[in-house]
Amino acid sequence: MAGVVSVNIDMIRAAADRLQGRARHTPLLSSPFLDRIAGRRVLVKAECLQHTGSFKFRGAWSAISDLPDTVTGVIAFSSGNHAQGVAYAASLRGLSAVILMPRDAPDNKIDNTRALGAEVVLYDRAREDRDALGDVLAHERGLTLIQPFDHPQVIAGQGTTGLEIAEQARALGVCDAQVLVCCGGGGLSSGIALALEAEAPRMQVRTVEPEGFDDVAQSLALGTVVTHPLRTGLCDAIVTPAPGRLTWPILKRLCGPGLVVTDSQALRAMALAHERLKLVLEPGGAVALAAALFCPDQIAGDTVIVTASGGNVDRAVTVLALQEEATYAAR
Amino acid sequence: MAGVVSVNIDMIRAAADRLQGRARHTPLLSSPFLDRIAGRRVLVKAECLQHTGSFKFRGAWSAISDLPDTVTGVIAFSSGNHAQGVAYAASLRGLSAVILMPRDAPDNKIDNTRALGAEVVLYDRAREDRDALGDVLAHERGLTLIQPFDHPQVIAGQGTTGLEIAEQARALGVCDAQVLVCCGGGGLSSGIALALEAEAPRMQVRTVEPEGFDDVAQSLALGTVVTHPLRTGLCDAIVTPAPGRLTWPILKRLCGPGLVVTDSQALRAMALAHERLKLVLEPGGAVALAAALFCPDQIAGDTVIVTASGGNVDRAVTVLALQEEATYAAR
Repeated sequence: MAGVVSVNIDMIRAAADRLQGRARHTPLLSSPFLDRIAGRRVLVKAECLQHTGSFKFRGAWSAISDLPDTVTGVIAFSSGNHAQGVAYAASLRGLSAVILMPRDAPDNKIDNTRALGAEVVLYDRAREDRDALGDVLAHERGLTLIQPFDHPQVIAGQGTTGLEIAEQARALGVCDAQVLVCCGGGGLSSGIALALEAEAPRMQVRTVEPEGFDDVAQSLALGTVVTHPLRTGLCDAIVTPAPGRLTWPILKRLCGPGLVVTDSQALRAMALAHERLKLVLEPGGAVALAAALFCPDQIAGDTVIVTASGGNVDRAVTVLALQEEATYAAR
Repeated sequence: MAGVVSVNIDMIRAAADRLQGRARHTPLLSSPFLDRIAGRRVLVKAECLQHTGSFKFRGAWSAISDLPDTVTGVIAFSSGNHAQGVAYAASLRGLSAVILMPRDAPDNKIDNTRALGAEVVLYDRAREDRDALGDVLAHERGLTLIQPFDHPQVIAGQGTTGLEIAEQARALGVCDAQVLVCCGGGGLSSGIALALEAEAPRMQVRTVEPEGFDDVAQSLALGTVVTHPLRTGLCDAIVTPAPGRLTWPILKRLCGPGLVVTDSQALRAMALAHERLKLVLEPGGAVALAAALFCPDQIAGDTVIVTASGGNVDRAVTVLALQEEATYAAR
């Protein structure tokens, strides 16, 4: 691990201090109706209620609040949620933000990122080299790169979600549970895993991915990084090709076997969160709830905790989710 | 006011003690996008995240937790949200619950009330005398009536929302604001008004009703109770014919002029809460947000606080709301 900055619990606690009064302390919700479907108690960490509609604001503010005063602008690559988090965090600190977004990102995410004050530069996922494009822009304008997950202070910021989960679960008398986390590059999963290792050592993170994008589950099963071809899917927020360079060693050391759900299950979980928790989720933010509801045999314990990690969804996809669950319920 | 039990701040504080660990301390949310539409800061008390999907659980548990041990069952009349609150609160205390619901109540509210363990008795709003039916059932089975708003402990329970609003707003540096409350019979409005009178005297409650159901606004304007004919509408949760016997004197003494919004505005507020706050609201739970967004000239101050009082909505109405806002945005 030479040359790799590690992340530790002290960094997560320091990030929590910087996030105090800036990020929302999101509620841990539940519904007897969901418990009945899952066959166990389900506690839902509602990060869709976080500023900018996803947990990504935590990591963005953690990283941006830690920058030296000499920095005047930041740049980020993102299909959407990290973009909004960075745009809003940069505006709070009075920094300019340039966001490189794939041309096929959901319209609402592109619009919102612009409305939060960032300059959006669109690129073609298939034909253009995002990293090269970013390097040129960063160099020309003197911008600091905020990586979506392979950044120590981003992981530390996401880890504050784990501190809150440990505290909120303890208040409910829960010390022993699997914690299902919606997983793309592993920033949220690894941050929560580190926080729980220190604060709730009888809890274990299980990553959840959509079918066809289970690079983390496969990597965990094989004990070595598996890389998938880059492509997009319904769960656009979490369709990364491989776990990150910083996140992978943490995931490997601390997480249980990865879980995988279908797009249909993610849509049904969105509809059930809508109906039973009054929460709007996006497909990638609903996969952990989907695993809790529809893969009960792969989970242990009386209580399962899930992250509902984001809610930035186009209206058409919400309608699709409500239809999917209605079709299923009518069978 | 001979013979009428009054409600006071001590009863609200005592209700808060009984609700501790039972009701959720719901978040006060905001979005820069909503602020922009409203032309001022908008803080949203997300009571749709309360147990059973509306603030009604507060009043129900306040009343039911205050009953003597000799009571074995309760009865309630409700188009839905009070029904679910009473059903769940009764089950928590191990009491049986009979709920009289109009036959035209939304399907999801009837189903949920049953699933929460209550016996649902349906009646015809137009042809049957609900009160007589309830009296017979209560007498035959020895049930205690929990009124939806004209019950001192119900008002005290709803008032705990006001204690939280005062505390959460103060933490944001807000002491001076109009507080827009979705209003049916006035239980939530009067409870919050009493709580704010004690805890945040520079805040004032403004009731919000749907067009055609503005009996409270008319009553406030005339200084005397105006009664409308009983009928139903899109905002089914708040279509009561008149302010209550207990709530009216409180509303008259403490509230500013009532606000009125159209059904279309309520639907658009639902869509904007969905998109910007990731909250699912029902039409009757969205009228206060609608007033903040679409009636800015009738509101004073830099900050407005609104209750998002319930989210128990059929899927078809959610889809209608998303369509309504899309149609409007496309104009």
